[in-house]
Amino acid sequence: MKMEDLQKMVEEIVAVDADAEASAQARLDNLTKPQGSLGKLEWLASRTCAIKRDIKARVDRKTILTFAGDHGVVAEGVSAFPQEVTPQMVLNFLGGGAGVNVLANHVGAEVRVVDVGVASEVNGEGLIAKNVRRGTDNMAVGPAMSMEDALAAIKVGMDVARDAIADGAEILGTGDMGIGNTTPSAALYAALLPAKVTDVTGRGTGIDDAALTNKIAVIEKSLAVNSDRLGSPLEALAAVGGLEIAAICGAIIESARSRIPVVVDGFISTAAALVAIRLNEKIKDYCFFSHMSAEQGHRIFFESMGLEPLLHLGLRLGEGTGAALSMGLVEAGLKIMNEMATFGEAGVSEAE
Amino acid sequence: MKMEDLQKMVEEIVAVDADAEASAQARLDNLTKPQGSLGKLEWLASRTCAIKRDIKARVDRKTILTFAGDHGVVAEGVSAFPQEVTPQMVLNFLGGGAGVNVLANHVGAEVRVVDVGVASEVNGEGLIAKNVRRGTDNMAVGPAMSMEDALAAIKVGMDVARDAIADGAEILGTGDMGIGNTTPSAALYAALLPAKVTDVTGRGTGIDDAALTNKIAVIEKSLAVNSDRLGSPLEALAAVGGLEIAAICGAIIESARSRIPVVVDGFISTAAALVAIRLNEKIKDYCFFSHMSAEQGHRIFFESMGLEPLLHLGLRLGEGTGAALSMGLVEAGLKIMNEMATFGEAGVSEAE
Repeated sequence: MKMEDLQKMVEEIVAVDADAEASAQARLDNLTKPQGSLGKLEWLASRTCAIKRDIKARVDRKTILTFAGDHGVVAEGVSAFPQEVTPQMVLNFLGGGAGVNVLANHVGAEVRVVDVGVASEVNGEGLIAKNVRRGTDNMAVGPAMSMEDALAAIKVGMDVARDAIADGAEILGTGDMGIGNTTPSAALYAALLPAKVTDVTGRGTGIDDAALTNKIAVIEKSLAVNSDRLGSPLEALAAVGGLEIAAICGAIIESARSRIPVVVDGFISTAAALVAIRLNEKIKDYCFFSHMSAEQGHRIFFESMGLEPLLHLGLRLGEGTGAALSMGLVEAGLKIMNEMATFGEAGVSEAE
Repeated sequence: MKMEDLQKMVEEIVAVDADAEASAQARLDNLTKPQGSLGKLEWLASRTCAIKRDIKARVDRKTILTFAGDHGVVAEGVSAFPQEVTPQMVLNFLGGGAGVNVLANHVGAEVRVVDVGVASEVNGEGLIAKNVRRGTDNMAVGPAMSMEDALAAIKVGMDVARDAIADGAEILGTGDMGIGNTTPSAALYAALLPAKVTDVTGRGTGIDDAALTNKIAVIEKSLAVNSDRLGSPLEALAAVGGLEIAAICGAIIESARSRIPVVVDGFISTAAALVAIRLNEKIKDYCFFSHMSAEQGHRIFFESMGLEPLLHLGLRLGEGTGAALSMGLVEAGLKIMNEMATFGEAGVSEAE
């Protein structure tokens, strides 16, 4: 995929349908409850209608896309877990034993697992094998990847999202697996919000104070080394991002193009959403942000963007676990709109 | 039921089982995720084990108890809706058209509807008819009810909870219906937290500024008129509470006695929980507080008690709607504990 082709596709994304949103809210206001009393559940319903341009929108068929990639920057000691955990967890996803599998089952969602950039060879039944390259380079000494690789990874995300939608998915969720990936994510927040590195860098899977100090220094160094490659969102994604982050960005772009709501998981998926939103601000309205991660820095994103996530449960696992839980909330909102009785149907008096 | 009998039953409630909670957390810490990375989902699982004294605890069978009662204080113009809505909504619950029905179906919970104090006669298939009296008196001119009536309503809640548990419920949720019931609830917060009336009084189903000013004055007057009847939690419940609030209090007490977790819904259910907790502080640990209501004053409760609700979705409907959503989270937490693979099972390396 050429950059011009991507830019053209991104520019073609249109705003969500305000008329459908208003029609949906009118329906909600006629149901047997004080107006607005179901808060964000009502908004999830009306916004889904706006995204799909359909006041009979449904999200019965849910698919979570979990992209895996590795990061050369782990050589700098930024993670508590060894890199071998990335492919091990891919196999765990395929075997159904990971957090995202359990929570996806809980809400009736399918999980699709994509190798877009794992550093070692990984095979397993059901794996969507789309490896662009075996992990990024160490961004503390140069760009994480070339623009060509970043575009290829974005295309993987777009293709996988398009396939899921073609197979019937009515809502998508994003997820990530990649040891070390809070480090490039924090670098993207710093570059694109923009924000101070110390404000957006946290403990990831659980590093101690000394490792956190090192992680901050590594991110500062990465941004300095790549300072002439941060001039656009795509350049920043290539220079200090990651392959799974690029693929998630592509899945979000494709969701907006296809007018399908996308539930953005946590800190890493939000870094990908940030790139997409910087490419076209309209993409923001196609995203439901699932939760406020316990990872420091996620809060900075929401404050900067004037957004609020749905859940505040102290999650910091990734994989799409938060997206799964929030898909259940979107479905609940639509059920409220479609299954509750109106004042007239139930013979209930309205407000005086 | 005599007050001494209730007090004896409440005193017999024991603390939740810290050993079971620790054993559950040890299990959670061995699953394929960074320790603690599923935040409150993990806590919901371990606390449920602590409540049930069983590390194999389940919440497959869920029952929401929705209690309906009327309030004499509506004569003071404190609500946007007419009192006839209380029995109309009871029929809506029985017909399956209300918000709580939709959200209970969404999470696989049963709803039991109890008339404990509706002002007019209400009948319908499935109604649990336990009317103690046809609404309270106007608390702005005297006590809302006698101690005998309050104890009878508490007993209704205990009996209905006990029946649900006997029928197999593994977790209970509370819900309320009663036009005007944010007014006695705010009075109970003011009396028992204690708190300033202006801090805990909100717009309920949607009153305007003038009506809010009046509502605050009505609550101030009610507390003044009943000032010699606020010396104990039970006296306050009788003087400035409500029949459905007393019944919810009874259901919470019975849950703790029976070692069954109870999901406390919103502003009204929390007033009932506050009475129960003031009777025995240990009851607090049997409660999951489902959400931060949009009703001003709910926040004051959480700040005063050092607690955090699960959801922040701007809900203010009551009925048990928030309890239903949160029951789904408790179930998700237990599924994480019981269905995820361990590091050993999945062949995943642990933190270095």
